[in-house]
Amino acid sequence: MLNENGNRINEFMALEDIKSVIIQASPCGVLIVDKDGIIIGYNDTFKKHRAVRHEKLINRKLEDIFFLGKRKDEQGNFLDPLLETLETGRASSGELELYISFLHDTAICRVWSAPIRDKDGRFIGACGVYYDLTPYRRKKKQLEEVNHILVQTSAQLYNQHMETIRAFANAIAARDNYTRWHSEKVAEYAQQICYGLGVDEQTANMAYLAGLLHDVGKIGVPEAILTKPGRLTQSEFDIIKKHPNIGVAILDSMQNMKDILTIIKHHHERYDGRGYPDCLKGDDIPLLSRVLAVADSFDAMTSDRSYRKAFPMEKAIAEIKNNAGTQFDPEVVRSFLAMVQDHWITG
Amino acid sequence: MLNENGNRINEFMALEDIKSVIIQASPCGVLIVDKDGIIIGYNDTFKKHRAVRHEKLINRKLEDIFFLGKRKDEQGNFLDPLLETLETGRASSGELELYISFLHDTAICRVWSAPIRDKDGRFIGACGVYYDLTPYRRKKKQLEEVNHILVQTSAQLYNQHMETIRAFANAIAARDNYTRWHSEKVAEYAQQICYGLGVDEQTANMAYLAGLLHDVGKIGVPEAILTKPGRLTQSEFDIIKKHPNIGVAILDSMQNMKDILTIIKHHHERYDGRGYPDCLKGDDIPLLSRVLAVADSFDAMTSDRSYRKAFPMEKAIAEIKNNAGTQFDPEVVRSFLAMVQDHWITG
Repeated sequence: MLNENGNRINEFMALEDIKSVIIQASPCGVLIVDKDGIIIGYNDTFKKHRAVRHEKLINRKLEDIFFLGKRKDEQGNFLDPLLETLETGRASSGELELYISFLHDTAICRVWSAPIRDKDGRFIGACGVYYDLTPYRRKKKQLEEVNHILVQTSAQLYNQHMETIRAFANAIAARDNYTRWHSEKVAEYAQQICYGLGVDEQTANMAYLAGLLHDVGKIGVPEAILTKPGRLTQSEFDIIKKHPNIGVAILDSMQNMKDILTIIKHHHERYDGRGYPDCLKGDDIPLLSRVLAVADSFDAMTSDRSYRKAFPMEKAIAEIKNNAGTQFDPEVVRSFLAMVQDHWITG
Repeated sequence: MLNENGNRINEFMALEDIKSVIIQASPCGVLIVDKDGIIIGYNDTFKKHRAVRHEKLINRKLEDIFFLGKRKDEQGNFLDPLLETLETGRASSGELELYISFLHDTAICRVWSAPIRDKDGRFIGACGVYYDLTPYRRKKKQLEEVNHILVQTSAQLYNQHMETIRAFANAIAARDNYTRWHSEKVAEYAQQICYGLGVDEQTANMAYLAGLLHDVGKIGVPEAILTKPGRLTQSEFDIIKKHPNIGVAILDSMQNMKDILTIIKHHHERYDGRGYPDCLKGDDIPLLSRVLAVADSFDAMTSDRSYRKAFPMEKAIAEIKNNAGTQFDPEVVRSFLAMVQDHWITG
């Protein structure tokens, strides 16, 4: 066991004390039993780990003290590697969970057991070394528990976010039923257009959510203007044009709405820079705002409004097509046309 | 070290092999040095832990291999308890962090060291036992990290909740500026009344939040009715009476709004059971709804409305007092009166 090198090490090995010192200093429990399993020795660590008094250990059988007189469990597995060594005469190892009545708790040990033989090679007993894994296992278990809570909390955070979006969709619906269904359809169209553009799943989902909320600012526009049967005056239209910024004002306090807000803010910009509120142009307009612009216009044209009847589908599609490059991003229009081709086999 | 009992144990103790077996089975690293710190022996576990080859260990000085030739750090602390034992001749223990170049990582050990003396008591060397704490420490560190993330995520969850409430307050404000300031004041009054009732801090805060959102359902009531200058017709009042349930419909999708929703739903119940929407009576009305009822009526009376001027403060207070036991919970009214006494020294 100790690597020897020349004479000097032999001088040390001859000292019986060295080994006693090593065992003394060991943080492991050490137990020695005779061939019948009767305990004849142990170190202080063993006694401390098991929280059992000397009289309860010495000269008593291992299985009687800790295992209700049994050596194996119901599945036929040895209850302690040391019991296996007693039966087989061979070294063994394993893990052991022990109920420590004194602590009202279980301790988990890694155990190594080995046979002891006399100078003629006869099996006369066995020794076990017990390494307490409890603090490590406790930390591991805590880690698993905390991890589990973290997964739940993160899911909760996401659910709460989705619930908030749903609640704002409800608020829009409470105000104005047209806007509610319009928002649902714009959300669907925007997501489909995104798939055609080949963006990732997350971006397509973001387009859906932004679609649901794109008109949230209309909560702040008077009904008289929203539902006016005739053409709007310039000053009425100026009020309508505030709705993207009102939407931003409503959701601005929410950290996790920042991305959606930017999209909502710019969904009435035009590709040629003549839109509102910021007259952004081309690629300066966020991609999903350009997507919403097409989805929004298409649904508005194909719905009955207070001031006009719905356009026929073909006319609405032609209108979008004609405005590619001026009002709309031509790339987004291309994806939109592919979508209507797939869904309605028209155009 | 081994507890002895009668003759049988002596027979075992005489076996040099027992102790070798114990050290062999030990999951601890064992190191033996002579009085000059030159390594003369170690067990396999030690070699494995340190990931150092035999030629690099045997016959070389401990401090040269692991500590760049030093025994103490810059603060004068021994770099290894074994080095302390070499200098002082006394046993020592401590923790040790070692960089294992082979693993590109550090290992943390608990170390026990003890002097070795010959039969005449002369100090001839020392032995160290190294118990690897690394897996335990790694789990502990992971646990700390995950705990930290959990604390952050929980805070995020709370912030998100508060942000949502703020966003709905913004939505109310976008719709109707009167309701915005009304809500802020009702929230304040409700919280103050709660303090007077002696409820816990959390409940008082809940009253504040419910106050902020109690009229969220008014988003769904047409402006023509909300701002009508004259008296409402019965059918118009029937529409107004829907606002608590519209509030519920808007926020119903949100798990963490359930408590607030119940309070909002019943803020127009009357103590005598003649309120709306559910004609609840007395203690069947949630406490915070009873609180909101008083706060809401007081602020409505003391504000200018489209259909009447604000009441003088004294008249509003008298009105609340006169309706204790019919419209309002007398206990809540008592706390309300104490609040106005404290704040305005009237009544």
